[in-house]
Amino acid sequence: MGFAEETAVAARTQTTYAAQLHSGWDIAGNANGGYLLAIAARALLQHTGRPDPITVTAHYLRPGRPGPVSIECRTIKRGRRFSTAGATLTSDGRPLIEVLGTFGTLEKRLPEVERIDGCPPDLPPLETCVSRLPSSGDMAASFARRVDLRLHPADSGFQTGSPTGEARMRGWLRLARDEPIDTVALLLCADALPPTIFNANLPVAWTPTIELTVHVRARPSLGWLRTAFTTRFVSGGFRDEDGELWDSAGQLVAQSRQLALLPLER
Amino acid sequence: MGFAEETAVAARTQTTYAAQLHSGWDIAGNANGGYLLAIAARALLQHTGRPDPITVTAHYLRPGRPGPVSIECRTIKRGRRFSTAGATLTSDGRPLIEVLGTFGTLEKRLPEVERIDGCPPDLPPLETCVSRLPSSGDMAASFARRVDLRLHPADSGFQTGSPTGEARMRGWLRLARDEPIDTVALLLCADALPPTIFNANLPVAWTPTIELTVHVRARPSLGWLRTAFTTRFVSGGFRDEDGELWDSAGQLVAQSRQLALLPLER
Repeated sequence: MGFAEETAVAARTQTTYAAQLHSGWDIAGNANGGYLLAIAARALLQHTGRPDPITVTAHYLRPGRPGPVSIECRTIKRGRRFSTAGATLTSDGRPLIEVLGTFGTLEKRLPEVERIDGCPPDLPPLETCVSRLPSSGDMAASFARRVDLRLHPADSGFQTGSPTGEARMRGWLRLARDEPIDTVALLLCADALPPTIFNANLPVAWTPTIELTVHVRARPSLGWLRTAFTTRFVSGGFRDEDGELWDSAGQLVAQSRQLALLPLER
Repeated sequence: MGFAEETAVAARTQTTYAAQLHSGWDIAGNANGGYLLAIAARALLQHTGRPDPITVTAHYLRPGRPGPVSIECRTIKRGRRFSTAGATLTSDGRPLIEVLGTFGTLEKRLPEVERIDGCPPDLPPLETCVSRLPSSGDMAASFARRVDLRLHPADSGFQTGSPTGEARMRGWLRLARDEPIDTVALLLCADALPPTIFNANLPVAWTPTIELTVHVRARPSLGWLRTAFTTRFVSGGFRDEDGELWDSAGQLVAQSRQLALLPLER
């Protein structure tokens, strides 16, 4: 099975959708945040009848474990071009994430007013980039079989106990078996790299996401994504993480930002 | 009256709050998006019993006009440190904005793990910065009497028909009569500068916000804020706008990002 099947939803009522959290999309047993968001987005797209997420925000409430989940959707406004809707994804009646989003159709248009102040990250060729370590003890081993990540060698030091000191992660990204990345898969990809903070010299064991917002800017062309994630502000027990996802045609396809907690090792 | 009074809410039921959209907080008759968000946040703080917004997202549905509004709140999760809650702000039964946020207490802590990759914008002294033009035809004239903005001279050209060509706005910011800026006022301040795009050479008449997310990172010290807003990606009929707000102590107090539409003049 692939990403599309393992994020599928089925309508149960006018507002309720059923889905399954499949094992393998987890880090140390907890479902990846982007995976949870993608499932909620599938339900919201079906609910609103729109093809693309335009901007979605998830607040993370509890870790997700494999098993059945339910997504309760509510349309807030149905407009001409966009629909705004919210969803609660629950497991055993307990909310795991709350999502608010605006959905519509991403079209190629108005190229005459494009202004892009930025470019895809400069990544070395794939073959010189670094896979996630397949060590049997790796917390992300099964996730790494579903999301094919090749880290920039300059950002991979944390895997061997040598964090670079720069809170940054860059890499090539695609789904396993080169499954096409749709605008829902971009939500997964916006949360699929190791936390930037693993490359900072901070005593951080884990860094749970409080909130993740993704702006989907275009439908991706086939092929590898080039991705870059950076943390600029660690303060007050929180950190940001900004991401950019670029497709094989050199087009910005998504921007992300999350706010995460920074519990310290004691 | 000041910002605190003109964003006050009153509980009507366990979940419903009443407020007033006061005139003056508008641009060309439509209530400023940060002002609407601030009112919703006041209701959510009262509803959750938390003092500070940590991360809030608003989706903008309809323009707001002066008059009574109602805020319907629902707590999604009440945790030990944070509460996550949503709100719909309606006028005459029609939703104007939908908000999702996580609320808690911002405390000074863990300075030993601060890492800040950034600094307040380099602004010339106040007296050499530029106020919003008080011309009687200015769409933002009354707003400019409530929010005291002094633009960087290098970014003020758009006011006199000479946009700089750089999609950027920087300036000193405070509330009228130097009213203290609390963490709710930061939500207003995150949307209080003219759109960055006014400084780009694009045929843009207006640029309605679809979504605005603000991460409140600290309680501001008294005095002027230094603010900087930048648009990096204009494509597909959308644009981003990233903001940073720094207090007089040189502390990052909020980060913002919005996604806005870019309807062209015809």
